Amino acid sequence: MTSYKDYTIATLGSHSALQILKGAKDEGFRTIAVCEKGRSEPYTSYKVADEIIEIDKFSDFFTIEEELKKRNAILIPHGSFVSYIGSEKVKDISMMHYGTRGILQWESDRMKSKEWLVDSGLNVPKIFDTPEEIDRPAIVKFHGAKGGMGYFVANTPDEFYDRIREYPEEKDYVIQEYIVGVPVYTHYFYSPINDELEIMSFDKRYESNADSIGRISAKDQLDANIRTSYTIVGNMPIVVRESMLPDFFAMGRRVVEKSRGLEGVGPAGLFGPFCLEAIVDPNLKLFVFEISARIVAGTNPYVDGSPYTWLRYDVPMSTGRRVARELKEAVEQDRLKEVLG
Amino acid sequence: MTSYKDYTIATLGSHSALQILKGAKDEGFRTIAVCEKGRSEPYTSYKVADEIIEIDKFSDFFTIEEELKKRNAILIPHGSFVSYIGSEKVKDISMMHYGTRGILQWESDRMKSKEWLVDSGLNVPKIFDTPEEIDRPAIVKFHGAKGGMGYFVANTPDEFYDRIREYPEEKDYVIQEYIVGVPVYTHYFYSPINDELEIMSFDKRYESNADSIGRISAKDQLDANIRTSYTIVGNMPIVVRESMLPDFFAMGRRVVEKSRGLEGVGPAGLFGPFCLEAIVDPNLKLFVFEISARIVAGTNPYVDGSPYTWLRYDVPMSTGRRVARELKEAVEQDRLKEVLG
Amino acid sequence: MTSYKDYTIATLGSHSALQILKGAKDEGFRTIAVCEKGRSEPYTSYKVADEIIEIDKFSDFFTIEEELKKRNAILIPHGSFVSYIGSEKVKDISMMHYGTRGILQWESDRMKSKEWLVDSGLNVPKIFDTPEEIDRPAIVKFHGAKGGMGYFVANTPDEFYDRIREYPEEKDYVIQEYIVGVPVYTHYFYSPINDELEIMSFDKRYESNADSIGRISAKDQLDANIRTSYTIVGNMPIVVRESMLPDFFAMGRRVVEKSRGLEGVGPAGLFGPFCLEAIVDPNLKLFVFEISARIVAGTNPYVDGSPYTWLRYDVPMSTGRRVARELKEAVEQDRLKEVLG
Repeated sequence: MTSYKDYTIATLGSHSALQILKGAKDEGFRTIAVCEKGRSEPYTSYKVADEIIEIDKFSDFFTIEEELKKRNAILIPHGSFVSYIGSEKVKDISMMHYGTRGILQWESDRMKSKEWLVDSGLNVPKIFDTPEEIDRPAIVKFHGAKGGMGYFVANTPDEFYDRIREYPEEKDYVIQEYIVGVPVYTHYFYSPINDELEIMSFDKRYESNADSIGRISAKDQLDANIRTSYTIVGNMPIVVRESMLPDFFAMGRRVVEKSRGLEGVGPAGLFGPFCLEAIVDPNLKLFVFEISARIVAGTNPYVDGSPYTWLRYDVPMSTGRRVARELKEAVEQDRLKEVLG
Repeated sequence: MTSYKDYTIATLGSHSALQILKGAKDEGFRTIAVCEKGRSEPYTSYKVADEIIEIDKFSDFFTIEEELKKRNAILIPHGSFVSYIGSEKVKDISMMHYGTRGILQWESDRMKSKEWLVDSGLNVPKIFDTPEEIDRPAIVKFHGAKGGMGYFVANTPDEFYDRIREYPEEKDYVIQEYIVGVPVYTHYFYSPINDELEIMSFDKRYESNADSIGRISAKDQLDANIRTSYTIVGNMPIVVRESMLPDFFAMGRRVVEKSRGLEGVGPAGLFGPFCLEAIVDPNLKLFVFEISARIVAGTNPYVDGSPYTWLRYDVPMSTGRRVARELKEAVEQDRLKEVLG
Repeated sequence: MTSYKDYTIATLGSHSALQILKGAKDEGFRTIAVCEKGRSEPYTSYKVADEIIEIDKFSDFFTIEEELKKRNAILIPHGSFVSYIGSEKVKDISMMHYGTRGILQWESDRMKSKEWLVDSGLNVPKIFDTPEEIDRPAIVKFHGAKGGMGYFVANTPDEFYDRIREYPEEKDYVIQEYIVGVPVYTHYFYSPINDELEIMSFDKRYESNADSIGRISAKDQLDANIRTSYTIVGNMPIVVRESMLPDFFAMGRRVVEKSRGLEGVGPAGLFGPFCLEAIVDPNLKLFVFEISARIVAGTNPYVDGSPYTWLRYDVPMSTGRRVARELKEAVEQDRLKEVLG
């Protein structure tokens, strides 16, 4: 029988790699950061990687897959991984990797993920099938997770056609009702090893310029003709009204249950870290506008644990460390296969 | 003589119960969460309750008071407790409960609390006695702490009458000058056991839609006719300019001193956790618009201690844990009566 | 050879003194807080000062310098220190003080600091030499770090002349292009003892009224003729998009390198804590609009360590504590002179 010490945790040096690698080290694993040339300084400075492997660009990942296999490495996918490798090519990975096979296809396709969320009984914003249907504020989002870059708001079909001209190369977008309310991102972890659903933490994104135009007076905004954009620059910690927690637990549970048997997903369904991205309106009604079926960067404020994980754990439990602990327990119980996609 | 281990800490499962129960456990107490049926998952998942007692709705609290007495439980009141039980019925509680008898009457009546704050030498926003007096931006707040739901802004008497029509059932409200500046909520703890006033932490609320309309461009706000609302969805951690701290300490001290001898309060006055809710304007002038005479949910980001408590304590000292420590010290010094209301 | 226990750490009781003193105590030093009369409560309440020395006002600092020398004290300068003593008088300090001699002259002069940043290859906002040149939104900043008080935005020369009339006493200002994007303040620490550059944390400021006018609907802002102001009231923790970290490291390194040999600075150049204040626009382009060549108050949320320092250190490493550790290591290696300005 193998020991968890025989395995190495590897991930791409970006997104949430610092906490993934730190968490793995804290749980006793060896770690590898796969970095783009000249961009490894964070991983050396913060001392989270036992080894750095450099490649020219992340899309060259497959050129070093064999090297990783030799080190008995388990790959942890994250948002940048999906974005750089492509959700289709994720299927070609032949090394051990953590997470549900096929689920990334569901999260990256906005129509499929909407179907999944609706089938789970969640409340979602309206999707406009054509620009002509826009009869209220709508946000236009491009396919592929480029960190929100290029998203725009349109109030009418005319405004849509006016704005979309700036993006001649973008053919693949979704037009979503814009819900007025505060964003709340819930970070879940579902363990098939102990059949428990945890809420690790919450965040709100820090977006440019969305989170700064409010600092400009309405008059100056109008004078300068300022429009909103949604490029993710970072994340801010929040806690939520405690009376809403039971509902957040219920939502996560339903999404996990419905994931079982989704096309291409398999009976295990969704497990590990995932995130429901929601807007809470002034009547406390929740609108879930996105699901991420892997670790999100919104967990990064909680490298040393969150106001929620400190309730349950007596060590600093980041989501990255929770992943490592899951792998450790899986190895120890000889159930590693169950958590590899 | 009794040991603190003979007591149990109980609270309603909502608001700030997670940190209250976690703090109690960390100080060595047994804990009970009183939950609404089907809404206990946070308290089991986060492992903070040794026992869960379920009731249909929180207003049924009195049906289980005897059960709590049998367990030698001390009840910790919080914002949801006051809101669900009603500040008048709080007087009918016959079990041990932490905090000042009668003070909740003062905090829940906006005119009485204004009087208390003014008598303490604090600067408060103007109150308009009638809608006709509105001659500048004013915020209209309903009686009872429903988490900010329904509050609105009116700039003129006409606008007031226009908006109030949406709330035909609300007869009891206050019209408060709207101060332009940043909200700062100061979390105090005053201990009569060691006669010390501490500042535990600060937060700002996360309100829907107030904290998100700034993400919508002025043009789009005007097009969609967006108005502000103030429903509390959560809290965000902040620290304050260090040079302001002596003033925050002085404000808290004066409020404590003035509370002694308030009608129905008794000579002990206000003690335990309380909060001054203030706006800081661009000249650093402070306007205190509310006082909470019990633990506030704004302390929830600090389950593992705050940037302030870590200065003074060498363990993670949440406000919830501070309450438990106070009870423990009171029991050990045979002074428990002094901190039960 | 001396031991670090022979030294005392002293600072003015304001700005970031709590973490400086707490950090010094944690590293084993004796500590002194120099406070204005009647304003020492934070330093006693939080138990960070072994001794409090009171003076009438901070500008009387030189009257107690001899006393500090008798205690073998090393002075840690911070933002309030520079502001109250004056960057010219800093040169007159004859006691031991931490940091680079002469660098504060560069940070406090906006034209000199711009030159330094540009020579370091950083991207900076345009400076308008005269009000007549204003052809886009511009922010007008007065000389001297009074915490942002009085800064204003002007879109045209006329608007500039209209607003400046409110500040008849201010002759010394800079007119800087207003970049629309989110503020990101990077907290660096460069150690000449081990020749390493660390990123300790990030924050955004909490400014009145800039961070609250977004809570007022555009319509109400226009009705009430609200203008933005930028008085610092506190700070909020953030983390940044991990893929940007290598660029933040590179920026800090170039600034340190370029500082060597700046007029009046000496060959050691900039060392210890410093901060680059930047705006990140929607294309992730960075504009650095200011440099602080000493500890900034934006590190105050991280008294117990930041999501970044917890990666590298196994104790809570605030920037204040990092300074103390540097001094300790310098003493132990008999290199103290290298870090005294």
